[in-house]
Amino acid sequence: MKKLLYLLPVLYFAILTYLSGCIGQQKPFDKTKNLKKKHPYPITILVHGGAGTILKSAMTDSLEQQYRQALIQALQAGYGVLQNGGAALNAVQAAIVFMENSPLFNAGKGAVLTHEGTVELDASVMDGNSGSAGAVAGVKTVKNPILAARKIMENSPHVMMAGVGADAFAKEQGLEIVDPSYFITEYRLRALQKILEQEKTDTTGYRIELSESGKEKYGTVGAVALDQYGNLAAGTSTGGMTNKRFGRIGDSPIIGAGTFARNQTCAVSATGHGEFFIRNVVAYDVSALMEYAHLTVTQAANRVIFDKLLPQGGSGGLIALDQQGNFTMPFNSEGMYRGYMNAHTPQPRVFIFKDE
Amino acid sequence: MKKLLYLLPVLYFAILTYLSGCIGQQKPFDKTKNLKKKHPYPITILVHGGAGTILKSAMTDSLEQQYRQALIQALQAGYGVLQNGGAALNAVQAAIVFMENSPLFNAGKGAVLTHEGTVELDASVMDGNSGSAGAVAGVKTVKNPILAARKIMENSPHVMMAGVGADAFAKEQGLEIVDPSYFITEYRLRALQKILEQEKTDTTGYRIELSESGKEKYGTVGAVALDQYGNLAAGTSTGGMTNKRFGRIGDSPIIGAGTFARNQTCAVSATGHGEFFIRNVVAYDVSALMEYAHLTVTQAANRVIFDKLLPQGGSGGLIALDQQGNFTMPFNSEGMYRGYMNAHTPQPRVFIFKDE
Repeated sequence: MKKLLYLLPVLYFAILTYLSGCIGQQKPFDKTKNLKKKHPYPITILVHGGAGTILKSAMTDSLEQQYRQALIQALQAGYGVLQNGGAALNAVQAAIVFMENSPLFNAGKGAVLTHEGTVELDASVMDGNSGSAGAVAGVKTVKNPILAARKIMENSPHVMMAGVGADAFAKEQGLEIVDPSYFITEYRLRALQKILEQEKTDTTGYRIELSESGKEKYGTVGAVALDQYGNLAAGTSTGGMTNKRFGRIGDSPIIGAGTFARNQTCAVSATGHGEFFIRNVVAYDVSALMEYAHLTVTQAANRVIFDKLLPQGGSGGLIALDQQGNFTMPFNSEGMYRGYMNAHTPQPRVFIFKDE
Repeated sequence: MKKLLYLLPVLYFAILTYLSGCIGQQKPFDKTKNLKKKHPYPITILVHGGAGTILKSAMTDSLEQQYRQALIQALQAGYGVLQNGGAALNAVQAAIVFMENSPLFNAGKGAVLTHEGTVELDASVMDGNSGSAGAVAGVKTVKNPILAARKIMENSPHVMMAGVGADAFAKEQGLEIVDPSYFITEYRLRALQKILEQEKTDTTGYRIELSESGKEKYGTVGAVALDQYGNLAAGTSTGGMTNKRFGRIGDSPIIGAGTFARNQTCAVSATGHGEFFIRNVVAYDVSALMEYAHLTVTQAANRVIFDKLLPQGGSGGLIALDQQGNFTMPFNSEGMYRGYMNAHTPQPRVFIFKDE
């Protein structure tokens, strides 16, 4: 009988753990309950400008400075909105519009060129509060595709529009329409010509999205934000892959793949080899791992980028942010243009390479 | 001390339950381990032909018989492939090609018409074994969009192609190309004219996808299958919504929303109000609930259709199948054209209305 007494603490602990596990599993997932509503949420914005084989050795100091400066300005554009009490959606939009207008990034002006030497732009946006979303694919004339995605979300019964129809909707909504030549830069023209030359001597099929060094580079821009009201939002915009053909659509305009936001879990914007990101439903998977497997935003994002995508050869990264202001910016490529700004860091912090 | 003895069975049970819970949670998710590899898997095929306000009162006996017959033939086409030792992907393809060729369903021939009186077809397919996928959006000339999706999956580096580019790829791959008039039926022309008439007197914006009775109806076809090797596959094809404009894309061509397959979890094809299905990443959510929250395929599908979509007003349904041959066909609308055929049911079983 005395032996039983020794077992008591063990049994007690086992029962307690079991019971707490049961309760934890049955309770509906609602992190917001634990937050004091009277305190504003810690406003935060993250941006990315694409991932891939971005090596310090392959970049001039001047170009590196241009990228860092542009990331800082994108963060400031978004953070300014949040600081003035603005909505996460508007902050995401401001940061992405800045990057779309910059010729440095593969989105809006300066986007990569298709096989035919044209631009076909994709973008999407999602509101973590309402769950509403909007997306455009293959637009050619709307100056800021992210604004077209927002208009679709707010002023149409649809989530996704493509091609000339999407351009027509953007025009009808009063968005700025530009001549397709507006988007084209000398740099991207040269990149396309280089690939077309390589294609002539390459029998393995058509080549897509090679950087100067012949390595993979995935240009996309994106932002996620948390406003003082506790609302999350995410957005992504891209020109896709250099030399893309056949109306190829990547993950950026796909809700669940390139973009996802839900106040109860996280806001995510992804960048990388889009086909892998579509098949793995990357952005929503981070949210699902938080909701169903009870991982933190960092654990969930790492699981997707390193444990799922990396073994498949799915190169890229993502930015993710939760309602408490916890965030992560993992990538499995050589580098990712990225940065953040929040209430704790009055100055924007930007990074390009690994181990920065 | 005697009192402790009474507690023993309770404690014993609690510890056992706790331990089994721990093991279940920590073990990597792999249902296949428990199956004896030497036994073939229970070949199964499910199809759907769309969901919505499908009421017996609004349908003639003759039309009802035509639908039931077509569903049976689609099932037989797919099951025949499985019975001959064919792959799940080929079974899904055979069932969907049959429904695309039938003028009864909103896919391929007989698809609904856009605002301009044209057809814009969407389709997607996913292989649960390799995780590869293919999709087309807004194609206008390839006779069987599901075959174009399959070609993209197998013969291109991409997952998704849209518009004229996708049609060009399909042609390059040797698929049958038809004049756009091939798809148009008298019935769909009348349906479009009716909506256009209603639109003239309606100031709430443009009307989409109303059935004869003025109620919602979402036409899509889809199939999921399990072959004897334990491989799952899923596919979906649609003409979208009557009177759709601006190159609207619904959930059918979106991997994760309308279609998803993974051997370790399930194969899913969805049909319903596409915008809700995109925002809720419906098809992948069923898989995520199985993998991360350890629900069965039926529990997971019910959670998505009834607990998530219904409160949002997201009308529709889905078919889902796991590697053990367990399946479910839930819908929150008035009806869903649906059916199944497997080793246990030598005759195909088809259903249209609720409570059948």
